[in-house]
Amino acid sequence: MKQYEHPPADAFELTAVLHALADPYRLFVVRSLAQVQPQPCAPLQAGRPKSSTSHHFMVLRKAGIVRTEVVGTAHMNSLRDAELEARFPGLLVSVLNAAENIPLEACAQPAS
Amino acid sequence: MKQYEHPPADAFELTAVLHALADPYRLFVVRSLAQVQPQPCAPLQAGRPKSSTSHHFMVLRKAGIVRTEVVGTAHMNSLRDAELEARFPGLLVSVLNAAENIPLEACAQPAS
Repeated sequence: MKQYEHPPADAFELTAVLHALADPYRLFVVRSLAQVQPQPCAPLQAGRPKSSTSHHFMVLRKAGIVRTEVVGTAHMNSLRDAELEARFPGLLVSVLNAAENIPLEACAQPAS
Repeated sequence: MKQYEHPPADAFELTAVLHALADPYRLFVVRSLAQVQPQPCAPLQAGRPKSSTSHHFMVLRKAGIVRTEVVGTAHMNSLRDAELEARFPGLLVSVLNAAENIPLEACAQPAS
């Protein structure tokens, strides 16, 4: 059974977190999970090919932003928000607040 | 006389700001300016070629993080911290706080 790797909280790197959040689709995933979590990957794909989605989720996991756990046949994603808040206080919250003026659906679309 | 272009505050884009801050050298520049501003480019070059420095400053200007003004023969850089705070409250402060555990000099070095 596939298991995903997740860095420990003390290995989170600030520039990796910022890089992970700097992409519109990844920001869409983070905002969606902030509203409802955990969620499987499928409703978060937003019409993207699975290979693209997998890459973006890997970036989010490596940065320490998302945890993916295998539950039966589903791969359930959640934010590591408490760990991020402990390590980089106020960062994720300020990004989520700043993103509120961007329509969530607009972020999900592949760049045209 | 060279003049630099700066976006108005209402055109700042969250993902561009995050992308600009996600680079170790650019984060070094922002942290340095947060300590002392304005500063000319030279003391912030940290041994980098001028072309590399110019590129990074352009990314910071385009994102709305840095303002460069020509004062006589010097190009003086400062943070647009008040405008950033008004547009994305808490974001720059949380990034600067999160960066405090990273030695400033370590950020300045080109990746080996």
